[in-house]
Amino acid sequence: MDAYKAIVTKRDTRSYTAEPVSEEVLRRLAQAGRMAGSSKNRQPVRFVVIVDKENMADLAKCGDFAEPLGPATAAIAVCLNPEGMDFDAGRAAQNIMVAAWNEGLASCPVRIHHEDCGRESLGLPDGWRISMVIALGHPDPNVPMSLGRGRKPYDDYVQWERWSGEEEGS
Amino acid sequence: MDAYKAIVTKRDTRSYTAEPVSEEVLRRLAQAGRMAGSSKNRQPVRFVVIVDKENMADLAKCGDFAEPLGPATAAIAVCLNPEGMDFDAGRAAQNIMVAAWNEGLASCPVRIHHEDCGRESLGLPDGWRISMVIALGHPDPNVPMSLGRGRKPYDDYVQWERWSGEEEGS
Repeated sequence: MDAYKAIVTKRDTRSYTAEPVSEEVLRRLAQAGRMAGSSKNRQPVRFVVIVDKENMADLAKCGDFAEPLGPATAAIAVCLNPEGMDFDAGRAAQNIMVAAWNEGLASCPVRIHHEDCGRESLGLPDGWRISMVIALGHPDPNVPMSLGRGRKPYDDYVQWERWSGEEEGS
Repeated sequence: MDAYKAIVTKRDTRSYTAEPVSEEVLRRLAQAGRMAGSSKNRQPVRFVVIVDKENMADLAKCGDFAEPLGPATAAIAVCLNPEGMDFDAGRAAQNIMVAAWNEGLASCPVRIHHEDCGRESLGLPDGWRISMVIALGHPDPNVPMSLGRGRKPYDDYVQWERWSGEEEGS
């Protein structure tokens, strides 16, 4: 798929079929995440790829809204070292999700609110944490993608040279 | 360009020619950023597109390592509302940078270390901040892309089911 098309048509989606995601595809997604740049090329991000349903259920207990991990057939935990910035984790995660969409896979970020729980679930070293978990799967064709998940108007999002918008509320 | 190819070949690059980036392309890049998902679809991210060299120089004073804004012919400030997370800013920024690469444009994130300075430079409302500025331009063909900016080995980056790597140091 053309890169621009993949980027602008990707929607966060949490309904998946039972069809598994192949290891080959998961390896490609992790490579997409690995190639994201990072501040000073410090490479603070690591990935733990999960396909075992028990492991996914264990990790889901560490987030307050981790329902997407129920139907997901794979997940990639985006982990950060002690100095890592969530901005860099977001870059890597977006690479993974756009690459997934390019393979026809749906995805949704899942936040792990309870850091110690998440660290223990994955066996992360001290000081490391999970920035976000990406739930993955083949999209359920019976569920419309991100129904109602529109975007605010372009001119609210984008301004030129200097801020001239209203102070939120739009 | 194929989405996967655009994702894995994009390198953060800070050497640009003097050729301007067209408004049409900048609008497309902002649209790529706008279409990035966000936590609960809260859409905490806004963009300020800058092409005026004086405005860019003014903003560059607010970062400790803002040299890429010197030769850049355009910049997009990725701004966050008071509740916004840098993870979501990173998603939007990566969309912008991969879409830029898809247009043959190079880019590099520039951190604005001095928040008040950045807020004042762009005239952001109270509580808003700049998560990152994306420097943009046509790549200088005389400068190799990200020379030496390699990545740690794949197996250091990616683990399966559970953390089994060494505690950093690799």
